[in-house]
Amino acid sequence: MTDTAPQTGELNVLCVGNAIVDVLSQTDDATIDELGMVKGTMALIDAEQAEALYARMSPGVETSGGSAGNTAAGLASLDAKCAFIGRVRDDQLGDIFTHDIRSIGVEYATPAVTSGPPTARCLIFITPDAQRTMNTFLGASVNLGPEDIDEDMVARAQVTYLEGYLWDRDEAKEAFLRAAALAAANSRMVSLSLSDPFCVDRHRDSFREFVSNHVDILFANEDEITSLYQVSEFDEALQHVRQDCRIAALTRSEKGSVVVAGDEVHVVDAAPVDKVVDTTGAGDQFAAGFLSGLTRGKDLATCAHIGGLAAAEVIAHVGPRPQVKLADLVAANLGG
Amino acid sequence: MTDTAPQTGELNVLCVGNAIVDVLSQTDDATIDELGMVKGTMALIDAEQAEALYARMSPGVETSGGSAGNTAAGLASLDAKCAFIGRVRDDQLGDIFTHDIRSIGVEYATPAVTSGPPTARCLIFITPDAQRTMNTFLGASVNLGPEDIDEDMVARAQVTYLEGYLWDRDEAKEAFLRAAALAAANSRMVSLSLSDPFCVDRHRDSFREFVSNHVDILFANEDEITSLYQVSEFDEALQHVRQDCRIAALTRSEKGSVVVAGDEVHVVDAAPVDKVVDTTGAGDQFAAGFLSGLTRGKDLATCAHIGGLAAAEVIAHVGPRPQVKLADLVAANLGG
Repeated sequence: MTDTAPQTGELNVLCVGNAIVDVLSQTDDATIDELGMVKGTMALIDAEQAEALYARMSPGVETSGGSAGNTAAGLASLDAKCAFIGRVRDDQLGDIFTHDIRSIGVEYATPAVTSGPPTARCLIFITPDAQRTMNTFLGASVNLGPEDIDEDMVARAQVTYLEGYLWDRDEAKEAFLRAAALAAANSRMVSLSLSDPFCVDRHRDSFREFVSNHVDILFANEDEITSLYQVSEFDEALQHVRQDCRIAALTRSEKGSVVVAGDEVHVVDAAPVDKVVDTTGAGDQFAAGFLSGLTRGKDLATCAHIGGLAAAEVIAHVGPRPQVKLADLVAANLGG
Repeated sequence: MTDTAPQTGELNVLCVGNAIVDVLSQTDDATIDELGMVKGTMALIDAEQAEALYARMSPGVETSGGSAGNTAAGLASLDAKCAFIGRVRDDQLGDIFTHDIRSIGVEYATPAVTSGPPTARCLIFITPDAQRTMNTFLGASVNLGPEDIDEDMVARAQVTYLEGYLWDRDEAKEAFLRAAALAAANSRMVSLSLSDPFCVDRHRDSFREFVSNHVDILFANEDEITSLYQVSEFDEALQHVRQDCRIAALTRSEKGSVVVAGDEVHVVDAAPVDKVVDTTGAGDQFAAGFLSGLTRGKDLATCAHIGGLAAAEVIAHVGPRPQVKLADLVAANLGG
């Protein structure tokens, strides 16, 4: 096992989220309907549902995932210094998650729990249109609480990045709020990803309050941002969010992204992709690219370009984390 | 968990081998050298070595593997009826192996052991030339013994297919010999894959004896067959093997395959591949294609063609099992 001695030094980003191993499998639209899933979204399932659903699933490929974990992996691939906080169990999937995130140089020291539910897994059904439909059994992730948020780590990070999915559990939400409070107390930035339109539905009021009062950099896709403000048009949501937080980076799939920061607005085209294979991790990698640029002093349009390049890489293959060195990809496309 | 009630009915093939989950990761030639591995071969490692090596490995993708298990998956993808015998533990990797093989319709009833070492894993390093270098921790596989060979299952199968790797352990070798004896007693065919040139080196004399006396269909690549007969030229090995067993299907990577059966000889070109990505499972899928044809009355040249198509599919992507329906691929290329 990799050394877990306390580390020091400035971090670009600290990512906090659910520590999840993904089980990826190809399926068809009929199966999505038959199993009662809503394509393109994430549903929380319990252990029994996970077993029943897995029994209906084709052979899978297992790979480390989790929204904020994927973002940490993207940041590492961009040579940004980053750390991850999230909880696994001391089981085989936990070993896989821990190995994968440490082996790319992400600082990860949350101890594995030694009892209770197993490491979280997400059963991901990929349809021929490259959409992913996710079913998450949170397992050991539910053990993440405020005591896991290390103040020193938050203080060392320019940005503390939080996935919206944490809001689904009271303990994790407390961890989330503690991380945000510590970041503010240390004059550091707080970033939030809205994660999923259903997640926004479940927590709209508290998300609105949190975005207004605590978020410096918000990430959301079109469905999420229109759900947050309960509007039907993207542009309406845009006008709302401009009032609400310092920087909002809004992704629109093949239409690219829009970044608003007060009076500053950038509309940036998507990076070209030969063939979209699996959209799992697209938003996570956009956030990685964007934050990698932002924490190294790039202008907002460049941050969005880097985010777009990182997202384009991950949707061209199966799996939620980069398969090439993103720093090289960015250097080849945008220069050093 | 899938139903494990006894099944009945004719099987095309019963595959017997080590039940292994693969951990696949990209690497470079320098790392292969630095870690003291011999490119393109398989080494057996113990639990401690597995941990040390895993710590040096890049992030991995986990997927069900094992030579005979991969062949069973290929046969299922070709709509052949097949079964698998091999041992996992009752752990997460064991669940993954069991789920994956059953979900494609392979009959698999070997009970998971409830104590002892964990499910076997194979750490596979893929170099840019698409070669795979394998390090196998046999784990729970070592619990496979002669008592696991179900006579009824052998009697139902036209061919019992055995991976040479089983020869590495006395208990598994006994299982292997029992399966071969039961097949002969039931007037069924026995097939052997030589698996690896080092495996052949370790067991040359007993392999020679077994091939001469018990094998109806032998699979080997060029390195393995020249090692078996301790000759330097492929053609020399060919002359030897013609005397030794009823059918020998010899694979030569991009040079295609040669099938000999007494006076009958076929030299069959390899199926074209756009880009070779990962050769893991190439031999296993060739065997699947060949046996699928043979057990459905196809002539030997057609069997070799089907084998070549199955091998070409698996080397075009990462992972040792087919990602498309091989039966469709064969129908498109060779007709129904």
